[in-house]
Amino acid sequence: MHKTAIGIIGASGYSGIEATHILAAHEKVELRLVTSDRWQGEAVGRRLGIAGATGQLRYAPLDKSAELARECAVVFLATPAESSLHMVPGLLEAGVRVIDLSGAFRLRDTASYPAFYNFTHSSPGLLEQAAYGLPELFRERIPSARLVANPGCYATACALSVAPLLRAGLLDEGSVIFDAASGTTGAGRKGSEDMSFSEVDEDFRAYRVLRHQHTPEIAQTLASVAGRTVPLTFTAHLLPLKRGILVTAYGRLRSGATAAEARAALEQAYASSPFVTVEASPDAVNLKSVVGTNRCTVALAADTSGYDPGRVVVTAAIDNLVKGAAGQAVQNLNLMMGWEETLGLSTLRAFSP
Amino acid sequence: MHKTAIGIIGASGYSGIEATHILAAHEKVELRLVTSDRWQGEAVGRRLGIAGATGQLRYAPLDKSAELARECAVVFLATPAESSLHMVPGLLEAGVRVIDLSGAFRLRDTASYPAFYNFTHSSPGLLEQAAYGLPELFRERIPSARLVANPGCYATACALSVAPLLRAGLLDEGSVIFDAASGTTGAGRKGSEDMSFSEVDEDFRAYRVLRHQHTPEIAQTLASVAGRTVPLTFTAHLLPLKRGILVTAYGRLRSGATAAEARAALEQAYASSPFVTVEASPDAVNLKSVVGTNRCTVALAADTSGYDPGRVVVTAAIDNLVKGAAGQAVQNLNLMMGWEETLGLSTLRAFSP
Amino acid sequence: MHKTAIGIIGASGYSGIEATHILAAHEKVELRLVTSDRWQGEAVGRRLGIAGATGQLRYAPLDKSAELARECAVVFLATPAESSLHMVPGLLEAGVRVIDLSGAFRLRDTASYPAFYNFTHSSPGLLEQAAYGLPELFRERIPSARLVANPGCYATACALSVAPLLRAGLLDEGSVIFDAASGTTGAGRKGSEDMSFSEVDEDFRAYRVLRHQHTPEIAQTLASVAGRTVPLTFTAHLLPLKRGILVTAYGRLRSGATAAEARAALEQAYASSPFVTVEASPDAVNLKSVVGTNRCTVALAADTSGYDPGRVVVTAAIDNLVKGAAGQAVQNLNLMMGWEETLGLSTLRAFSP
Amino acid sequence: MHKTAIGIIGASGYSGIEATHILAAHEKVELRLVTSDRWQGEAVGRRLGIAGATGQLRYAPLDKSAELARECAVVFLATPAESSLHMVPGLLEAGVRVIDLSGAFRLRDTASYPAFYNFTHSSPGLLEQAAYGLPELFRERIPSARLVANPGCYATACALSVAPLLRAGLLDEGSVIFDAASGTTGAGRKGSEDMSFSEVDEDFRAYRVLRHQHTPEIAQTLASVAGRTVPLTFTAHLLPLKRGILVTAYGRLRSGATAAEARAALEQAYASSPFVTVEASPDAVNLKSVVGTNRCTVALAADTSGYDPGRVVVTAAIDNLVKGAAGQAVQNLNLMMGWEETLGLSTLRAFSP
Repeated sequence: MHKTAIGIIGASGYSGIEATHILAAHEKVELRLVTSDRWQGEAVGRRLGIAGATGQLRYAPLDKSAELARECAVVFLATPAESSLHMVPGLLEAGVRVIDLSGAFRLRDTASYPAFYNFTHSSPGLLEQAAYGLPELFRERIPSARLVANPGCYATACALSVAPLLRAGLLDEGSVIFDAASGTTGAGRKGSEDMSFSEVDEDFRAYRVLRHQHTPEIAQTLASVAGRTVPLTFTAHLLPLKRGILVTAYGRLRSGATAAEARAALEQAYASSPFVTVEASPDAVNLKSVVGTNRCTVALAADTSGYDPGRVVVTAAIDNLVKGAAGQAVQNLNLMMGWEETLGLSTLRAFSP
Repeated sequence: MHKTAIGIIGASGYSGIEATHILAAHEKVELRLVTSDRWQGEAVGRRLGIAGATGQLRYAPLDKSAELARECAVVFLATPAESSLHMVPGLLEAGVRVIDLSGAFRLRDTASYPAFYNFTHSSPGLLEQAAYGLPELFRERIPSARLVANPGCYATACALSVAPLLRAGLLDEGSVIFDAASGTTGAGRKGSEDMSFSEVDEDFRAYRVLRHQHTPEIAQTLASVAGRTVPLTFTAHLLPLKRGILVTAYGRLRSGATAAEARAALEQAYASSPFVTVEASPDAVNLKSVVGTNRCTVALAADTSGYDPGRVVVTAAIDNLVKGAAGQAVQNLNLMMGWEETLGLSTLRAFSP
Repeated sequence: MHKTAIGIIGASGYSGIEATHILAAHEKVELRLVTSDRWQGEAVGRRLGIAGATGQLRYAPLDKSAELARECAVVFLATPAESSLHMVPGLLEAGVRVIDLSGAFRLRDTASYPAFYNFTHSSPGLLEQAAYGLPELFRERIPSARLVANPGCYATACALSVAPLLRAGLLDEGSVIFDAASGTTGAGRKGSEDMSFSEVDEDFRAYRVLRHQHTPEIAQTLASVAGRTVPLTFTAHLLPLKRGILVTAYGRLRSGATAAEARAALEQAYASSPFVTVEASPDAVNLKSVVGTNRCTVALAADTSGYDPGRVVVTAAIDNLVKGAAGQAVQNLNLMMGWEETLGLSTLRAFSP
Repeated sequence: MHKTAIGIIGASGYSGIEATHILAAHEKVELRLVTSDRWQGEAVGRRLGIAGATGQLRYAPLDKSAELARECAVVFLATPAESSLHMVPGLLEAGVRVIDLSGAFRLRDTASYPAFYNFTHSSPGLLEQAAYGLPELFRERIPSARLVANPGCYATACALSVAPLLRAGLLDEGSVIFDAASGTTGAGRKGSEDMSFSEVDEDFRAYRVLRHQHTPEIAQTLASVAGRTVPLTFTAHLLPLKRGILVTAYGRLRSGATAAEARAALEQAYASSPFVTVEASPDAVNLKSVVGTNRCTVALAADTSGYDPGRVVVTAAIDNLVKGAAGQAVQNLNLMMGWEETLGLSTLRAFSP
């Protein structure tokens, strides 16, 4: 079978490792290039226990990324936003298609970058070109895209939780609140005391309250599906576990809309989605059923007690490294290459028990 | 020094154990009675490592509780709501004052009991008598109360997070959302597969969404401080850790109110509170700083980005077994006995690191 | 491709679930039967997120196991030892080959069963027939076996750690000590308070010291490879994590043997083993590199400081549910069917990060 | 009551924090000095939630330690060994008594320092003066000592597990094996990726196998109590939890000795020890019963099955920061000051549940 040459830049970070595992087992992919300074010269097999040809591939240093990437049809950038920002123009010019796992090309509004990413965008022109890689909501632009901005992990879970309700005009004009929590791998490899086991174990806390980097991204998505600005608050919390994101989203049904309609909207929106499952109750949405897979489980409950009339609560769970990063990137790759959307992803299984 | 005889009914549950530790070190308390079927006949010292006279006290069987309680000035009921319901009338008649850690006497409205507690209240007359034992908000009735309904753990954290804002009339008429998470000891001793290590470790999920038992209790408190019905949504989540509750509360400033006024309201409300500390930022509110103590940390952030104008987010953290149960019960005991409010509690230290 | 019908009896336990995942993705297997009372009538896909034909298979009740098993060429028994003991004779008579994941047929000596398993063996004749399914050490009898006794998880790790040293006659006549620790899934599904999250989290302890069920099994294996009785002590500990076993084994080089020879013995023994890797140092042997895979990593260190001349320490790590149960069972299935030994197993990846 | 001025150098490390909590509540101690660069200028109360005068004490910078220490009768050095090595001579000359929590003065043999501590001892003369601060075994020299070398955490647990058996001559001439595991706070504050939550959670591994720093210390203690060199192997493992050490020690009874004699030796040795408890079975020795306290639980089991005749297994558990560091230091302080040995320590309670 003909295989397409794919590369991963920044292959030793947690998302990069996840991408390596998934692509190594993808029947249409030949993993041609993996770059990493930390593991340069080492064999992928030695580091990740992967067998076969992929196992014999060796990590090239990061500064060779641009040069070696030209051998690939598509490269995954699992690099910090500043690095992606720098590398993308050259890659595109060289005819390489790019799936960027960082936030560097997710926002349409250049003004957001200084505020939330601490840099001024050096290629604002490319922002228009970039396709936001969330297939369940924005499928159309992905297949032909030369540059896909892979969504943030939190942003993915938040968007999937309520987008169908906004698209169907079922929520009122009030704000939507996303209370989210993530495992530690979402923060990447960390040598900080803050993220040490002694400081994280048995603890739980919110961080960057009302100033998290994913807020503009979520706002952009909600506005896109709702056709209007949707006020929103997003709060992130750190969980003492390694993988997984749970979002509990709060909205209110607009006058006349019912909970049944809301559930139906979710079910219809995801009826043909291979990766999103609507559960009967939010109590059934948890991390362990999705961690290790590219799946997202979603469920809605509505107020019946009268304590908050019209209130709907939607929970959504994903694996931050899979559907929140590498898995979604592969899903986008499949669409870009015209392959079956679930290739290399349907075989992923939950880590549990 | 004269010591007052205190008893703990149901002393082998997690709250009962916590109460035993605190009371054993309380200089004005003589722990006279501890009852438990599970540990009947055993010495407290053998079970909990407590030295001295208290260590030599032996657990009496539960069915002896009512009889032996008469030797006490005050008894703590660390029993299920149905048991408390049954025991309280007799204890009061015998002249024993009661601090009930269950929900049996927390709600004013008898109609709520069948809906949320699955029983019809057999002593509705006592509901009026019971003082809701949250000193920071409802101090007045506690000193003379014969029956104190110790608040629920979640309800305590939720109330402390926003009550001052409601009292000061700073929030609009919209609903307040409480997104909370608790460690497993909040569920009590469990021999269910659901709460087994293999099922809880590395997982996170919401439960009893829009139908949690603490909702009417929180509603009652908010109405009391706001002087009006406050629509609310409360969501509980299970954390893979043993102790601690974090609540992230969402409200909106009424027109004209400012974030500075909101912060000031919190600071003023708790200025003379020995146990509640207002932190500068919600990022500083976490479980590890409070677990092991009777403290509650609270902090407020307000939207400045424009994504949700008027939004305020308040985080609050407590130890579910201390300020959420046994510690607050001892705080109430101190008030009931006319002792210094912090006796036996100011020496508690955080478990961390 | 022709697929062979395989069945799993007791498919809802942790080992059964693991076997289901592995067999569902095995290219030569048609998972024909899964039995479970807990999940009877439900679809495998609904429970485990498995797609395709296997996902549509429904769990039959346990009491139908024997009857339905006749449709299978081989069945996996993921049942308690007493159940396996009862089912095996009938299955063999019906011409079905059996891989028993319980301890019911592991021990040659019938006298050990009352002592360690609390039952008298009802089919002692079958003990002779059963092949002990540890391919790396006892490959010969497995391909033609009608009944394979799948080794215990602890026993597998202990055996792999030192067997090559014993076979090569490199250890002295003294006892070998195995200090082992396992995650909680090794105890199976538990609804006991003892195994509740609140009781296991942040704790560590030894259990069944000097009376663990796996001791006779390990003794049997050591005697087999050493050609003599090997005195041994085995200690199990419970780790506050879900999957994985680490064994730290202690032996002493016989006079004249060297650490280099010992390392060489391990490397040679496992040179052609697809699943056992010899690491350079015991510090490199950990759970996270093997959990999720059928691999075992092993490493040896020898005393050079003089504090314990001749001492060798060997560490070995496996996933208790994979190489310690279901994965090894599939490895045995491959040998029994004359298939490539790594089929369905080489694609397993480590769960980490 | 007259209080004695005590100081803690390096008060912001985990041991330093633990010492601060204990000394703050010690009725005969006035905590006069706490030094830390990280927290310099901040109030102890703000950092650790301690009330009263101690809470108002501010952290002085580390380079002021020597100067300010002169105001103290005794100082605790919770500093790295190299720092202690440097500070101790000057402190002693100034008439300040010192309890050093590092390993700088634990070993009698100067030759061990380059090998295990990577430095040449600059004050070998002081090694003779230093009293090894393990009261249960070496009480005599502590009360009059000017310099107490506080034992290592692992070394404390190992020593307590078997010393009485060696003293009573009950073990044979063979080696004693200590297989130990510790929570992460034993490694101190760490900003290394190695000790990050993502790398430690759900993992378990041995480290520095056959080359751990505590080996010579344990060897010195065993030789001291046995009156002969005792061959030993010590292995450390990292547990995914914050506090606690469990040691599983393996020895063999000498010919003629019985398990009953061994148990009696342990019981007699610790009969009057306020902190060491002998449990009936090793299964009852766990971290959660001792963490948070200065206690050590110990239990012995002996082979009765015949798999390893004469084998005895002793388990011992301590809190690495309390009995393994700060608590033992306070115990030594009490002895040095002629105070009741349990002052400030008997009130410590287990963190559990």
